[in-house]
Amino acid sequence: MIVIMQADATKEQIGEVEGALQEWGYEIHPIYGVERTVIAAVGAPTQDEARVAEQVESLPSVERAVLILKPYRFASKEFRPEKSQVKVGDVVIGDNSFVMMAGPCTVESEEQLMTAARAVKAGGATVLRGGAFKPSTSPYSFQGMGEDGLKLLAQAREETGLPIITEVMHVGNIDLVCKYADILQIGTRNMQNYDLLIEVGKVKKPVMLKRGMSAKIEEWLQAAEYIIKGGNDAVMLCERGVRTSETYTRNTLDLSAVLAVRELSHLPVIIDPSQGTGRSSMVPAMCKAAAAVGADGVLVEVHPNPEKALKDGAQSITIPAFEKLMPELRAVVEAVGRYM
Amino acid sequence: MIVIMQADATKEQIGEVEGALQEWGYEIHPIYGVERTVIAAVGAPTQDEARVAEQVESLPSVERAVLILKPYRFASKEFRPEKSQVKVGDVVIGDNSFVMMAGPCTVESEEQLMTAARAVKAGGATVLRGGAFKPSTSPYSFQGMGEDGLKLLAQAREETGLPIITEVMHVGNIDLVCKYADILQIGTRNMQNYDLLIEVGKVKKPVMLKRGMSAKIEEWLQAAEYIIKGGNDAVMLCERGVRTSETYTRNTLDLSAVLAVRELSHLPVIIDPSQGTGRSSMVPAMCKAAAAVGADGVLVEVHPNPEKALKDGAQSITIPAFEKLMPELRAVVEAVGRYM
Amino acid sequence: MIVIMQADATKEQIGEVEGALQEWGYEIHPIYGVERTVIAAVGAPTQDEARVAEQVESLPSVERAVLILKPYRFASKEFRPEKSQVKVGDVVIGDNSFVMMAGPCTVESEEQLMTAARAVKAGGATVLRGGAFKPSTSPYSFQGMGEDGLKLLAQAREETGLPIITEVMHVGNIDLVCKYADILQIGTRNMQNYDLLIEVGKVKKPVMLKRGMSAKIEEWLQAAEYIIKGGNDAVMLCERGVRTSETYTRNTLDLSAVLAVRELSHLPVIIDPSQGTGRSSMVPAMCKAAAAVGADGVLVEVHPNPEKALKDGAQSITIPAFEKLMPELRAVVEAVGRYM
Amino acid sequence: MIVIMQADATKEQIGEVEGALQEWGYEIHPIYGVERTVIAAVGAPTQDEARVAEQVESLPSVERAVLILKPYRFASKEFRPEKSQVKVGDVVIGDNSFVMMAGPCTVESEEQLMTAARAVKAGGATVLRGGAFKPSTSPYSFQGMGEDGLKLLAQAREETGLPIITEVMHVGNIDLVCKYADILQIGTRNMQNYDLLIEVGKVKKPVMLKRGMSAKIEEWLQAAEYIIKGGNDAVMLCERGVRTSETYTRNTLDLSAVLAVRELSHLPVIIDPSQGTGRSSMVPAMCKAAAAVGADGVLVEVHPNPEKALKDGAQSITIPAFEKLMPELRAVVEAVGRYM
Repeated sequence: MIVIMQADATKEQIGEVEGALQEWGYEIHPIYGVERTVIAAVGAPTQDEARVAEQVESLPSVERAVLILKPYRFASKEFRPEKSQVKVGDVVIGDNSFVMMAGPCTVESEEQLMTAARAVKAGGATVLRGGAFKPSTSPYSFQGMGEDGLKLLAQAREETGLPIITEVMHVGNIDLVCKYADILQIGTRNMQNYDLLIEVGKVKKPVMLKRGMSAKIEEWLQAAEYIIKGGNDAVMLCERGVRTSETYTRNTLDLSAVLAVRELSHLPVIIDPSQGTGRSSMVPAMCKAAAAVGADGVLVEVHPNPEKALKDGAQSITIPAFEKLMPELRAVVEAVGRYM
Repeated sequence: MIVIMQADATKEQIGEVEGALQEWGYEIHPIYGVERTVIAAVGAPTQDEARVAEQVESLPSVERAVLILKPYRFASKEFRPEKSQVKVGDVVIGDNSFVMMAGPCTVESEEQLMTAARAVKAGGATVLRGGAFKPSTSPYSFQGMGEDGLKLLAQAREETGLPIITEVMHVGNIDLVCKYADILQIGTRNMQNYDLLIEVGKVKKPVMLKRGMSAKIEEWLQAAEYIIKGGNDAVMLCERGVRTSETYTRNTLDLSAVLAVRELSHLPVIIDPSQGTGRSSMVPAMCKAAAAVGADGVLVEVHPNPEKALKDGAQSITIPAFEKLMPELRAVVEAVGRYM
Repeated sequence: MIVIMQADATKEQIGEVEGALQEWGYEIHPIYGVERTVIAAVGAPTQDEARVAEQVESLPSVERAVLILKPYRFASKEFRPEKSQVKVGDVVIGDNSFVMMAGPCTVESEEQLMTAARAVKAGGATVLRGGAFKPSTSPYSFQGMGEDGLKLLAQAREETGLPIITEVMHVGNIDLVCKYADILQIGTRNMQNYDLLIEVGKVKKPVMLKRGMSAKIEEWLQAAEYIIKGGNDAVMLCERGVRTSETYTRNTLDLSAVLAVRELSHLPVIIDPSQGTGRSSMVPAMCKAAAAVGADGVLVEVHPNPEKALKDGAQSITIPAFEKLMPELRAVVEAVGRYM
Repeated sequence: MIVIMQADATKEQIGEVEGALQEWGYEIHPIYGVERTVIAAVGAPTQDEARVAEQVESLPSVERAVLILKPYRFASKEFRPEKSQVKVGDVVIGDNSFVMMAGPCTVESEEQLMTAARAVKAGGATVLRGGAFKPSTSPYSFQGMGEDGLKLLAQAREETGLPIITEVMHVGNIDLVCKYADILQIGTRNMQNYDLLIEVGKVKKPVMLKRGMSAKIEEWLQAAEYIIKGGNDAVMLCERGVRTSETYTRNTLDLSAVLAVRELSHLPVIIDPSQGTGRSSMVPAMCKAAAAVGADGVLVEVHPNPEKALKDGAQSITIPAFEKLMPELRAVVEAVGRYM
C-alpha cells in the first residue's frame, strides 16, 4: 500500500501514520518529497488491504491510500497463469473451442423447449440454456415454471444429449437445481448476493457468474473469489452488458471485459449478446464480435416464436436466424484460430 | 400501451399487430399518420404490460411500444395519494418529523457499540443503526459479528431505549434478525434479491429498502412492490448514491430521488450520506441538504474512532463531529418547517 | 407526438392541452382510457417536436410526451435507405471494404511520423492518421505541432500516397487544416461544439465525427445532422468508447453502436479501439471485433516507440504489433465477407 | 509519481524503468517488495506528470503509475487556501452571501425578458440570466436571438440594475458578448472546448464554467486551469448535473461536487437545479438543498409562461413559483449562517 499524505501534513501527523502502519504489520518506506510525503508500506501478509486502506484514509492528514496487492487471490492470474478449463461432460469451456450455449430465455412448455432444444442441437449448440426460476423486475411478471421447468430441461437433455445451464436464484433451492442442472448460472442481480455465492462455492457443479449491471471487473473477480475460496473452482464468467446512459440498447455490451479478465485472471469468459443488447437484431453480429475478441463462447436466447415469449421476446432470435448464424459464426471462430 | 410502427410497415403488418393486441385483450385505436402508424392499445387489465410490450417489440414491423401504466401498483401515488408513515415505537418515519438514524456501520465490540449508542442518543438520534451481518465486496473482509452483534444491539436498545435498524442479508436468518431488530434493512446489493424481498414481505417488521447501485427509480419502486404485495406495507426507501464515472466520491448521492419518489409514490425516503459520498468530511453538509430537499431522515455512520473501524472508517464521522452536526442540522430542519 | 395525461387530469385540463396541440398545428386523436387519457397528435410538419414536447410537458396536467418522429432527417435511414459511401481518392469508406486508418496519435517529429507512415503503408493501411492540433485535458500537456505538423503530414502523403485524416479543433483554423488534410476529424470533446459543426458543414472535405464521451446515439446523429444540413454530406461516424464506472479501461468501447447506427442511419461507422480502451494490449483484439461486428474500418494509433510518445503512449501499438495484426485482421474481415 | 511494476517484472525491466524515470528528471526510491517492486519517483518539476505516467504505463513491465501531484495548479487549494471571490458590480460570489441568478433560459422577446427581469428583481435576485446564443442538440431547435437578445439583456440591466450572465458559445463572438454581458457563461458542451477556454482566459470579465455532462471533478478543475492560466482568475464553477442511467430526471444533480471543489480548490460553486433535474417541480427543493450544502448560489430558469417557452419550458419555474421560493430559500440560507 502507498499512503499519500496531505500537502500540509505536519511532522507529527506523518509520524502518527507511520506508527499506525507499523502497528498493522507493515514495513514502511517514507519518501519525504518537496510537495508532500509518500509512505510505501509493504510486507503485511493480508488479503484485506482494502479495509486497512480505508482506515488509513480516515486519518485527517492522509490524502489517499493506493493499493498494490490485488483484492483477490484464487481468481488471479498470479495464482494461476494458464487459463483454467471448465468441463461439462464432453464440453470444455476455456480450451481452444468456442462454445455455443443456446435455448429459450425461459422454459414455457414442453413443446416450446423441445422445439428449441432440437433446433439448437441440430444447429450445432453444445449446451442448452433455459430458465426455470426467473428474476423479474416486476413482481407481476412470469417467474418461471420452477421444478416443472427443470424436469423439462432434464427431458430435453435426455433427448438431445446437451448439458443444461440454468439459473439458481435462491439459496433454498440450490439442491433442487443441482439435481437437474449441469451448470449453475448466477444472474446479474445476484452477483453480489454473497449468501448465494458462498453456498454455490460448496457444490460440485460448474458455475457461470454473470457480471453485475454496473460492476467493475475487480468486483466481479472478487465475487468469483467467494465461490472459488469456498471450494468450487469450476467457475466461468459471463459478460452481459453494463448500464450506461444509452437507451437504444438495453445495456452496453463490454467486449473489452474479455480482454481485461484475460489480463487479470485465468477464468473463462462467455458473452451474452441477448441480454447485452436487448435487441434480437443485434445478436448475430455481436456473437461474431465475441468470437473475434477471444471470448470462450456465447449464451444466446433462441425461441420458436419470440413474439409469443413469456419473457424477453425482444432479445430472442428465431430458429431460422439461429440456423443462419451458426455457419457465419463458425467462419469467424476459425478465422481467429479456434474451432466450434 | 402505445405501439409505434416502423415507417415502412405494410398494411398487412399493421393488421397483424392490431390483431395481436386484440388477442391480448386490448381495445385498439389506430392512428394512420403520414409518416407512420401509431396504435393506442387500452383497457387490458394487466399489471404486466412490460412483458406484452416486449413481445410487441419483437415483431419486425414495430419500432417500439410505450407503456402508459406504471409497472407497480401498491407503491404508487395513484394507489395511495398521501404519504405513508412507518411507526417504530414512538418514532414515526414519514410524518412532519426528520429522523436521525445513527450508529456504527458495523458492530465490532460491546465498548464500541455502547459508546456510540450513548453518544448518538445524547446527541438526539432516535434510531440506532449497526450492522451484525455485513455484505463485503471482498471475501477476506470482516463480515460482521452475526448473532453476537445482534445481542449487543439489543443490549444497546435496552440501555438507550433507541429502536434498532440492522441489515438482513440472508433469507435463512430473517427470523434471527427479526428476533432482535426493530427495522430490517435491505442493502443496495440485495435490492433485486427477489427471494429476500418476497420473504421480508411476509414479516411484521418495518423494512428500509436501499436503492441499487445503478437502479432506476422505477426499478426501486418495483422492488418495494415485491415487499408490499407480499403483505408488508411498512416500507421506507433509502437513497445511498448511484454509480457514475466520478471517482472522488464513492458514489454520487442523488437527492432528487427524494423528489422523484414523492411524485410517484407514497413511501418515505431516508438519505444515507455516509455510503452516498464515502467521505466523512462530506456527511454533515449532505445531511443538511437531505433535510432541505425534504427527505424524511438520514442514516449516518458514527464511530468512536473511525481510524480503527473494521469497516468503512473513511465514511464514519466521529462523536464530536456528530455532536457538532445535530444543532446545525436542526436549524435546517426547522427552516423547512419540520422538526426533530 | 403522444401526450400522456396525469391520472388525475380534469376534463378542463385535457381540453386545454388539446387546444394547445391544435394551436401548434397538430391534428389530435384523444383516447379517453379508464386509467388516464392519451392524446395522439399528428401531422404538424416540424423537425423540432422535441421543443414542443418540452412545452407540453411543462403543463401541470401532463405526465409526459412521447416523440414519434426522429429528431434528425438527413442522417436518417428513412431519408436514405442504402448506406452512404465517403470517397477519399481511391479509398471508399462505406462500401464492402474494411478501412485501416493508422498512424501516430500526434505528429511529434519528421522521423517519428515518416517511420510510422512507411510502416503502416507497408502493413496495408490505406489512410494515415496523425494529430497536429491536440485537445488536452491539461493545459500543461503537449498541444501538438500545429501547422508544422500539418506540413509533415502532407510530406508523408507525398511519399506514401496515403490520404491524411487529422483533427480540426478550432473554427479559426478550418481553412488551414483543409489546406493539408483529406479528412477532417471532429474529436469527442467537440461533438456538440455546434459552432465547429456548422462550419465544417460548409467545407468540401469528408468529416469523421467522433461520438461524445457520454453521448446517446440519437444525439450523435443530431450532431451529424448539423454537418449534413450545412451542405456537407461526406460524413462518417467514429465510435471511441463511452464513459462508465469501469476504471480498468479508459472508456467502454460500444461495438453495438455500429449496429444501432445501421438501424437508424446510412452513415458509415469507424471504430477507434485505441481511445476506446486506452490500452495497447487490447487494440488488436478489438480491431478484429470491430471487423466482425460490421464496422467500416478502424482508426489505430501506431507509434515507433510508444514509451517515448508525447501523447497517449499507453494506447499506441508498436510497429511490430501492427505488422502482426494486419494478416490476423484480414482473416476476420474476409470471414464476414468483406475485404481489405 | 509511484510506479507499480508487474509481479513478474525482471531485474532488467525494473532497471530499465528506473533509468527512464531518471531521464525524465525524477529522483527514484525503489522499494523491492516480496510480491512486486514499487518505484517512488519524486522531484521532477513538471505540471504534466499525467503524460509521463502514460508513457511509463506503456512499458510492458509496468502495471500502473499513480500520480501524486494534482494536474492543476492555479485552480488548486494548495495554490490559494482561502476561497476566492468574484465581484460583479456590488455582487460578490464566494463570500458569505448566497447569490440568486434568475431569468429566462433564453431571451425570446422584449416583453418576455422584461417581465421576467422585473419579477426576479422584485423577488430578490441579484443577477439576471438569459441566453442570446443557445446550444441545441437539434439543428432545428431555436438557437437564440443573437445580438438582439444581448441588446434586450442590456436594456433589462438598464432598467433593473441587475448584472447580466449569458452564454458565449463561439470564439468568434466573445467580443460581441463581452460588449453586453457582465458574466460569461461557458456551457456544459463546451467545458472542454479548449479554444474557447483559452480565449475567455484573455478577457477581463468573470466566467462561469459549467461542468461537462460526464466530467470528473478533476477534469473540470483542469478546464478552469486553462482560463486562469490564460490570465483570467475571475472564475466560478457551475454544477448542472451529470449523466446517469436514471431517466426520470434529465440529469443527476451532484451536490457533493460543491464539497469536492471546496476540498480541492478555492473557486466558488453555483448550482443549476433547472438543468440539473430538467423538472420545474424539483427546482425549489433543490435550491434549498444547494444552500444547505454550502453552494455560493443558484442559477434558476424563470419564465412568465413556461408552456410557451421556446426552450426548456419543462425546467423553468413560473413567476409565482419564484416568489414563493425566495422566502423559503432565505430561511435555509440563514439557517446555515449565510445571507441573501
